[in-house]
Amino acid sequence: MVDLLAVLAYGELSAFERLCDDAALAPTLADKAEIAEMAIAEFGHFRLLRQRLVDLEVDPEQAMQPFVAPLEAFHASTAPADWLEGLVKAYVGDSIAGDFYREIAHHLDPGTRDLVLEVFEDTGHSVFVVEKVRAAIAADPRVGGRLALWGRRLMGEALSQAQLVAAERDALAGLLAGGVGRPGVDLVELGRMFTRLTEEHTKRMAALGLAA
Amino acid sequence: MVDLLAVLAYGELSAFERLCDDAALAPTLADKAEIAEMAIAEFGHFRLLRQRLVDLEVDPEQAMQPFVAPLEAFHASTAPADWLEGLVKAYVGDSIAGDFYREIAHHLDPGTRDLVLEVFEDTGHSVFVVEKVRAAIAADPRVGGRLALWGRRLMGEALSQAQLVAAERDALAGLLAGGVGRPGVDLVELGRMFTRLTEEHTKRMAALGLAA
Repeated sequence: MVDLLAVLAYGELSAFERLCDDAALAPTLADKAEIAEMAIAEFGHFRLLRQRLVDLEVDPEQAMQPFVAPLEAFHASTAPADWLEGLVKAYVGDSIAGDFYREIAHHLDPGTRDLVLEVFEDTGHSVFVVEKVRAAIAADPRVGGRLALWGRRLMGEALSQAQLVAAERDALAGLLAGGVGRPGVDLVELGRMFTRLTEEHTKRMAALGLAA
Repeated sequence: MVDLLAVLAYGELSAFERLCDDAALAPTLADKAEIAEMAIAEFGHFRLLRQRLVDLEVDPEQAMQPFVAPLEAFHASTAPADWLEGLVKAYVGDSIAGDFYREIAHHLDPGTRDLVLEVFEDTGHSVFVVEKVRAAIAADPRVGGRLALWGRRLMGEALSQAQLVAAERDALAGLLAGGVGRPGVDLVELGRMFTRLTEEHTKRMAALGLAA
């Protein structure tokens, strides 16, 4: 449980930083301000999750530490080359993470589940991303091909990092496997879950005007 | 008036970005979160100032545009080499700007004056910076000499960029010079103002444990 809250908390802090980096690439001041708003929303989630760790009498820094290296590895392997790649990463990455955590939220105690669901509630920022990406593709259709490849790479890197984290952190894998008095996820269910994640990803890529 | 609100607004947006850069240099996750809070406070000020421009039926982006190049020049010439230089810049730069704008606030209409005073109200974040810098100097006194030089350079660059902006923007210079039915600042008063700014800077450097 602590591991789950900690990986989420560090994920949000790290999303804040990456969106700040994206803001530097924004073509206009209005775009910069919009991305900054997205960054600040992620930091708000970080505050909630950190507070939950503190309430559980856990040192948030210590709890987050094991997830710093894998998340930084993910970000290093998926550094956006420009503004549009940054937008697609923010949208696709955040959505995949949201789908995944909402799936596992059903296996958590009610308090933690509600917090996780609150953190990943749609903030409405995706509308901004979808508009910008569709406009860029309309202006230059070649952009669509490049961003479609980029979206596939993001999905691949996200899955491989998630597997690494799950393999290293028994507690997280245990959450999925279940325990005494708590139903887990069997292999069939896990397979279905990944199918659902992939389907949702495909729908989102289509919303952006991209082939998944 | 529009020029003043616009330079303030862009200054705050730009401070948000610089603090995000500083967050990347933070030695611990707690320090990173603290700097992110400072960045978010600056962005909150940006929101207030942008709203004021919108209320005046001004396009905020267009109004801010003339100040992008000078402020970026200031930031480019004072890019912090490490975490401590970033902290000193955030503290000293923000404080000099605050002193300056509070001085000229007295020459504004009450609505704008109250907004400017609200934006520059002390957010209490300086306590964090003072503690960190003093601790670093206590651990290694040589740090103090380097940061003292850095503080002097920041003050010099800030003044020279401010002069450039004032020289290029007649409207801003006019605010200081006064107008029909609105008392301005004469040269003697301007001299006194710079003396006060320098005195305040010296006090703040002393609070950090640095010679100004």
